[in-house]
Amino acid sequence: LGSRAGILGDDCALIAPGAGTLAISVDLSVEGVHFRRDWLSAEEIGWRATAAALSDLAAEGAEAVGVLSSVALPRETPSAELEALMRGVGAAVAAVGGVVFGGDLSRAPQWIIDVTAVGRARRPVTRAGARAGDGVWVTGALGAARAALHGWEARQPPADALRLAFARPEPRLAAGRWLAEHDARAMLDLSDGLGGDAGHLAAASGVAIEIDLERIPLAPGIEAAARRANQSQAHFAALGGEDYELLVALPPEFGPAESLGFQRACGLRLTRIGSVVEGAGARFQQRGEIVPLRGYDHFA
Amino acid sequence: LGSRAGILGDDCALIAPGAGTLAISVDLSVEGVHFRRDWLSAEEIGWRATAAALSDLAAEGAEAVGVLSSVALPRETPSAELEALMRGVGAAVAAVGGVVFGGDLSRAPQWIIDVTAVGRARRPVTRAGARAGDGVWVTGALGAARAALHGWEARQPPADALRLAFARPEPRLAAGRWLAEHDARAMLDLSDGLGGDAGHLAAASGVAIEIDLERIPLAPGIEAAARRANQSQAHFAALGGEDYELLVALPPEFGPAESLGFQRACGLRLTRIGSVVEGAGARFQQRGEIVPLRGYDHFA
Repeated sequence: LGSRAGILGDDCALIAPGAGTLAISVDLSVEGVHFRRDWLSAEEIGWRATAAALSDLAAEGAEAVGVLSSVALPRETPSAELEALMRGVGAAVAAVGGVVFGGDLSRAPQWIIDVTAVGRARRPVTRAGARAGDGVWVTGALGAARAALHGWEARQPPADALRLAFARPEPRLAAGRWLAEHDARAMLDLSDGLGGDAGHLAAASGVAIEIDLERIPLAPGIEAAARRANQSQAHFAALGGEDYELLVALPPEFGPAESLGFQRACGLRLTRIGSVVEGAGARFQQRGEIVPLRGYDHFA
Repeated sequence: LGSRAGILGDDCALIAPGAGTLAISVDLSVEGVHFRRDWLSAEEIGWRATAAALSDLAAEGAEAVGVLSSVALPRETPSAELEALMRGVGAAVAAVGGVVFGGDLSRAPQWIIDVTAVGRARRPVTRAGARAGDGVWVTGALGAARAALHGWEARQPPADALRLAFARPEPRLAAGRWLAEHDARAMLDLSDGLGGDAGHLAAASGVAIEIDLERIPLAPGIEAAARRANQSQAHFAALGGEDYELLVALPPEFGPAESLGFQRACGLRLTRIGSVVEGAGARFQQRGEIVPLRGYDHFA
């Protein structure tokens, strides 16, 4: 009982005092619930779990300091698999300029990895700051991770680009910082998908959010999966979780010129998909009609 | 996939800048590996997982700021059970003056709880600072949690005091701070038991540690369990993990008077059980003879 070998020795990660608010996020990934081992390599499992926790820092406009990982693996797991898992953790955090502080290793019947990400933000951007009149914008393109999932579930192995969107999502830390410095009013990362997270932003800010489905930037290659799901690509993409793009409310004066500035600075699209209005909840529209979105997918 | 409802709303815990080094620790508890549901109530599971993470802060001499919890529960779990679990988390952190910042909730086939504890330390005490000539001391008394475990495994329900030692361990934050302020050279919490953790302290400090089994302070009520294990009480207690007492190296001038000062300030015993010497590894002695300790227990 309680074999908890410190991966790096000490009981705690120690972080020197520094400027800025500290942002800390945790993200738990369980085999069979959040991923399957026949979908992802050990390294990808480590990357993905770490990216998910780092993505929460991105949504605060924070920079990454480092991560701690709690890992549990079945007793018979070869040590090369643990090493590959930790290589993925290390690569994901190194890609955004952070370090692995340490962690905790124990046993479990399935693979479990919980990542704690620590960052600093000069001016943290929460979910609660959107005001009527703000524009609603999204980074990157949506739907690829959902298309990969639907491919696996339909026994149609997804194309590489879709698979990578699920296996190696890139947390948007530089984008989040740029947006925080350009007066982002409220921000979150699309871990549950636009269909759920737009409502979270609206609820936290005490406003309503209207989204035009036709403006949603679509990841390439999701046509077949959307067709199999009998949904338009935009509808399909709006229901896709795990994209880890940022959803952000920006002041009314933020327009196409500023969006271009973002694209130049971050190498990533920033698309206006809707508006903040008075009221409550998130509404999705297509050609002026309100489209009810079914709930998101759950696979376990 | 990926239903991650923030228990308290935002993606990150935000912690204002403050004085002192930040100490962060994670501790993963998995049903069937670290606890069984027929042994502990939901509230106790929450308390125990939280206390285990807070105990790492105690070992740094830190004060608690707060915790984040990642929880996964089977789909059919009644919400009252989640509430009880979170009540236990909240009670454990409130008992040491911290708060619950938030967390993450998802599904899994068994109960999983991973707690991230955040604290601050003016002068963190690591495992690596013990020097030859230091005394080796331990807080409280050892063996009760192991006796509870052995009771359950032998289908002899443990007495209340033993059961509580396992179900509601008290992280020694005030004791850890007192020791840090009184020149503790190296410190860790006995989560693996003296048999393993004395070696961890020795390895991190680059010294050897000699422990006199006869000086180990024994928790009352462990006789029957030790007898069933066919071990002396001291041997039994030295192998017991999950005590969450502190093992600390203190300078040679720290003596009985200082120990009494500790007892008055913290309401807890502090017992000298051995010495730091040059060399490597941990040695356990009884009546001048070296006693090899079997490895610790593993129950899954």
